[in-house]
Amino acid sequence: MILQQTQIEKRSGTEFSTQTQTVRLFDSENPLPLISGEHLFPVDVAFETYGSLSPARDNAILVVHALTGDAHAASRPRCDDKNHGWWQGLIGRGKALDPGRYFIICSNLLGSCYGTTGPTSINPQTNLKYGMEFPPISTIDMARVQKALLDYLQIPVLQTVIGGSLGAMVAWQFAVTFPDPARSIIPIAGTVAASPWVIGLNEVARQAILLQVKNGNGVNGAGLKLARMIAMISYRSEISFEQRFKRERVKNHSGKNFDPENRFQIENYLHYQGKKLVQRFDPFSYLTLTRAMDWHDISTGFAGTDEALNRIKASVLTLGIDTDRLFTAREMKQTAVQLTKLGKSVQYREIKSIHGHDAFLIEYEQLNKTIASFLKEV
Amino acid sequence: MILQQTQIEKRSGTEFSTQTQTVRLFDSENPLPLISGEHLFPVDVAFETYGSLSPARDNAILVVHALTGDAHAASRPRCDDKNHGWWQGLIGRGKALDPGRYFIICSNLLGSCYGTTGPTSINPQTNLKYGMEFPPISTIDMARVQKALLDYLQIPVLQTVIGGSLGAMVAWQFAVTFPDPARSIIPIAGTVAASPWVIGLNEVARQAILLQVKNGNGVNGAGLKLARMIAMISYRSEISFEQRFKRERVKNHSGKNFDPENRFQIENYLHYQGKKLVQRFDPFSYLTLTRAMDWHDISTGFAGTDEALNRIKASVLTLGIDTDRLFTAREMKQTAVQLTKLGKSVQYREIKSIHGHDAFLIEYEQLNKTIASFLKEV
Repeated sequence: MILQQTQIEKRSGTEFSTQTQTVRLFDSENPLPLISGEHLFPVDVAFETYGSLSPARDNAILVVHALTGDAHAASRPRCDDKNHGWWQGLIGRGKALDPGRYFIICSNLLGSCYGTTGPTSINPQTNLKYGMEFPPISTIDMARVQKALLDYLQIPVLQTVIGGSLGAMVAWQFAVTFPDPARSIIPIAGTVAASPWVIGLNEVARQAILLQVKNGNGVNGAGLKLARMIAMISYRSEISFEQRFKRERVKNHSGKNFDPENRFQIENYLHYQGKKLVQRFDPFSYLTLTRAMDWHDISTGFAGTDEALNRIKASVLTLGIDTDRLFTAREMKQTAVQLTKLGKSVQYREIKSIHGHDAFLIEYEQLNKTIASFLKEV
Repeated sequence: MILQQTQIEKRSGTEFSTQTQTVRLFDSENPLPLISGEHLFPVDVAFETYGSLSPARDNAILVVHALTGDAHAASRPRCDDKNHGWWQGLIGRGKALDPGRYFIICSNLLGSCYGTTGPTSINPQTNLKYGMEFPPISTIDMARVQKALLDYLQIPVLQTVIGGSLGAMVAWQFAVTFPDPARSIIPIAGTVAASPWVIGLNEVARQAILLQVKNGNGVNGAGLKLARMIAMISYRSEISFEQRFKRERVKNHSGKNFDPENRFQIENYLHYQGKKLVQRFDPFSYLTLTRAMDWHDISTGFAGTDEALNRIKASVLTLGIDTDRLFTAREMKQTAVQLTKLGKSVQYREIKSIHGHDAFLIEYEQLNKTIASFLKEV
């Protein structure tokens, strides 16, 4: 394994800028065996770290990002504001994930498009980008790559594995596939298996992308834009839309109310969010990662969910969100009840929010308090 | 006004088959003034009736269909089973809407594609189908056409106006625009104004259709199919999907679990529903009717919702569905509370169901009981 400690993205002009490193964890001599039966190589992994590893190598925390996230979970101290990471509200001095105390690792997930091998990588068989030809993967494959990164970093133990949404799914899977390294896991708004509701929403998003796939790997951004618009609805709640957008129009004079060109604010918001994703994400990564979500089911390879949950040695703090329309609090709670019945160490807490699923990226006061208190106990 | 009592669709081979009639209610000398400021002509309306009008002409009930519905709400007695109407469970001998007691009228909504003027009709200006050129309409325009049909049928009073979803929206609008004819209204799972949540879902469905609109009015069914797939998710609930589909695959042998071609049952269901709609519905009607839903707001033309609700003279029975993910029970209840504060005659009842929004087409035991009891009181 060769560490390619290249700065693949310098997010600010200062010397304090965040540095994403890349390491090759699997190659032709040591390919990654996928759950599908295929073998993948090379596999590069982009990751960032915050804080210092203790001499005993026992203060590491693994952070796992969601569907369209990246390794840049937080900026390093003294970085300018524009460099803020996607979980900046939770990672930092005095926050639940404090780099002054923990060695925090976040890597870009397998199949994504921010430095880790995925559909935008070059397929060594063809010397072209994989695109649609990227092999199907699951959260088991993602967990294996996370474990390989830990091995590379010579980290035998983790204080916790924490993530929201797809990140939570990978956290569950990690604790089942590798019961020993993690002392605890904190899955937030992400379940032990994708529900048919989640699969259905993923499928309509994929169909939007596939509507626009033309000439092999050529893609018009309109499909990914629509996929994101659909997903954005499921990430929020009808209450948050009501409070934020009401029935307001873009042009707010009543004479224009029956002009089809005078969009509602909610429409404008969805179009804006869709366009933003097209500028920063790859449609084939979207297909790959949503399929990995669908396939996520910790009971894979076991007689059932109980048998899989029984493998977990980590203490579990699982968080639901009361208005989550994608991964419901009901489902999150159900797994906690199941773990309790199995005699496992588990706590369930519910985030109160109007923001729906996205509350795991918004409600930092509740998240910090609950997570910090749990980590102190563990 | 000329009645064109043609049998536009003979749904069975028997002499008892349902007969849809068509009447021209607006023509060049008497065009329909639309809320947009445009004038529409000719306007033909397809409708069906069940039962007999009493000598006093006071036993009529107006049934309003939902987004992709038609005038065929029920089959006439002794029709074969294949002719069943979309609200057969509620209309019939011994049911809440009993043709032995009431004269029941259901007409195809303005802008639809089942006999009433809409985007599939010929535009007299061009002698081509309207398609995208069909003028934008609102539920006010729809209510006006319903009233014109009643005038044509010389029906001065209605026992009730009843509908679900978009049909409920039109029922609310009818009671506000025409406070006198209706003794009562029964809006089920449809609100006094479209929420930004509903508008957002409608917009992503429209964008799916627009992704496929090519060469003017030419349309590839893939867009409408995807629009329907998106909508179907919002019509159901995560609980109903969980109970019905679980994580089951189309090919149920475990070795195929990581084959992308081995679809989940929920995906198959959505694709099937999408395909079915393409065979029976027009994409431009879908655009027109969803935009009418978005524009639906009974406060239009008034100082606010209170002023609009204050116009209502009808007794109101409004029904929410506890698992409705599209028009929430919370919103339905809120309007009932508002009507009570205004001193209006209103009852709110909640349908208990796992089926989400579509419960208004499923939970006939609860619906019949609640509605029959209300109609007896009124």
